Amino acid sequence: MSREILDRVWHANAIRLIGDGVPAGDVMAAQAELTSWDEWYPYWAARGDAYARLASEARARGRRQSAGEFFWHACLSYHYAQFLWFHDPGRREAGQRRKVELYRDAAPLFAAPAERFELSYDGFTIPGYLRLPGGRDGPGPVAIVLGGLESTKEESYRFENLCLARGLATCTFDGPGQGEMYFQAKLRPDFHRFASTVLDWLVRRPEIDGDAVGVIGRSLGGYYAVHWAAHEPRLRACVCWGVLFDLSYYDAMRDPSRRGFAYVAGYDDSERAGPYLQKTLNLAGQAERVRCPVYALHGARDSLIPAEQVERLRKALAANPDVTFDIPEDGNHCCHNLYHVVRPRMSDWLAERLGGRV
Amino acid sequence: MSREILDRVWHANAIRLIGDGVPAGDVMAAQAELTSWDEWYPYWAARGDAYARLASEARARGRRQSAGEFFWHACLSYHYAQFLWFHDPGRREAGQRRKVELYRDAAPLFAAPAERFELSYDGFTIPGYLRLPGGRDGPGPVAIVLGGLESTKEESYRFENLCLARGLATCTFDGPGQGEMYFQAKLRPDFHRFASTVLDWLVRRPEIDGDAVGVIGRSLGGYYAVHWAAHEPRLRACVCWGVLFDLSYYDAMRDPSRRGFAYVAGYDDSERAGPYLQKTLNLAGQAERVRCPVYALHGARDSLIPAEQVERLRKALAANPDVTFDIPEDGNHCCHNLYHVVRPRMSDWLAERLGGRV
Repeated sequence: MSREILDRVWHANAIRLIGDGVPAGDVMAAQAELTSWDEWYPYWAARGDAYARLASEARARGRRQSAGEFFWHACLSYHYAQFLWFHDPGRREAGQRRKVELYRDAAPLFAAPAERFELSYDGFTIPGYLRLPGGRDGPGPVAIVLGGLESTKEESYRFENLCLARGLATCTFDGPGQGEMYFQAKLRPDFHRFASTVLDWLVRRPEIDGDAVGVIGRSLGGYYAVHWAAHEPRLRACVCWGVLFDLSYYDAMRDPSRRGFAYVAGYDDSERAGPYLQKTLNLAGQAERVRCPVYALHGARDSLIPAEQVERLRKALAANPDVTFDIPEDGNHCCHNLYHVVRPRMSDWLAERLGGRV
Repeated sequence: MSREILDRVWHANAIRLIGDGVPAGDVMAAQAELTSWDEWYPYWAARGDAYARLASEARARGRRQSAGEFFWHACLSYHYAQFLWFHDPGRREAGQRRKVELYRDAAPLFAAPAERFELSYDGFTIPGYLRLPGGRDGPGPVAIVLGGLESTKEESYRFENLCLARGLATCTFDGPGQGEMYFQAKLRPDFHRFASTVLDWLVRRPEIDGDAVGVIGRSLGGYYAVHWAAHEPRLRACVCWGVLFDLSYYDAMRDPSRRGFAYVAGYDDSERAGPYLQKTLNLAGQAERVRCPVYALHGARDSLIPAEQVERLRKALAANPDVTFDIPEDGNHCCHNLYHVVRPRMSDWLAERLGGRV
């Protein structure tokens, strides 16, 4: 079983890790060395510790850029150590907290630094980061990048860099059930209220043009992007990076994803979590209300989300005059295997809609 | 035999390809699909054609940045299609020429454009590229990046970006036996004269500080870097990215590398090429004359170049007061498996020695 889960995780994620910035040498060494899923967390945590040491050494020598990238590598190693480690919450949470610390170390050292913010909403504290593109004079556009089931505000550094190169600021945050927020709030039906709290803050920043705000979310984040766009008229563009329309396929879902949905909703038991998740995550009646342009990307060979989910979104958006569906026939989940093609394409679309530069 | 060569090429190069920028999705698909070395060239040439189409589409839509990166992906696909394809010169040369064209398309579209130059020397025309870092006001430092056995001026875009981010301009060119120059001149003992011709031109550029010029060469380029530094007093820093001191191990070398050395020297027969290559490529009597600081990186697990080569260079540099040997114990050839660690480290060292910013 442990070998089977390992194989399943590799199948869906090996190229994703590299696309997000995990060194290919680490991925290929792990593919050669690891024989069971049990070895996954210790391997990546050790890589994270090694990069944290390299980062501290570089920082002590005044090598700021390298230190920033090594702290980010350390962060990303811990991120992927814990990302699907739902069966062992103690260790997952330790990895989550370590990842957060490492990103805080990296953030000020990036060429385009990531500025941390913490916002109050209804008794919660929403943490996030804002990055600004170089050479901006006056307010400009921003892309808000949403995490998904196990994606958090620290995961998108590489994608953010594509946006920054196109003149878009980037903003990430953890919503209910995600990253740091998981310790305060589990998955709930009003993700959009948390997102709009971030937007309220963002549009008051002098560097941000409130009429040029877009959102992009990946996997479960693709669900959240459409969900939020249904509730938030200030959004000017919405990218659904992997279509998740509803959880009608929940019973066919396999671990660790299935256990993960239950986990972020605060359930120990995947079976018992089903009804709550299916009621809470459903775009029917929401997607129809989206008024801004939508770009939906989905891999025709996605092995995690069935293709009929795309058709449901297509129907629900039928009355929206500006919708693009991009369904590469050789794409896997979120087209991670085509990261070098689809990520520039999505950031180009955002830049075109929001007034960036392609 | 064909399967054996394929396995050998993967073993030494899979992570190198990704480190140089070849998409992990393409590498992993090739690892799964290709069953013999015969399939190598057609696979990568087809990838190159696919990226060239994407690039043309992006350019037609005004998406300059994406077009530049897609042309570069196309170039890199053709580069790696032909890089070790020495047994079939017709196809290798066609791939080489196509690669050159694709880079010419990409060059003006990069965020830091690559400006092509062609210099006359002794009846030859030396082609190369100069890239300048943003925000430079007045003359500044430059890193000259040398190719090796099958590396050419088009291969180092990613490494150049590390240098540019550290305030170093970058300059690449093809020397005898390399890339476009192969059609004019085969491998010869005076590589340094071609390199110094480039330097003569470079120091007359107003953006270049002639007192802040460094060189870095990879694999056989590491040989050339030390060879050139022995003859060129204007160099202020020399990085030997993979130590090749002499070809005393030529008879133990295997194809396709061995055939490659013969090929670039203009020999059809590897056996007959041996004496010429061993006489021509030998740092004994040269390395002792290097006066500038030297940084030598070599993987302790290099399966192509034996470790005693490092000891020879160490002895020859014994009188040089500023020499650093960096020999990661888990590094393979040129430490390609540690690209994310050693490449920033080498560019930091260059920036520190030449007055860039780390």
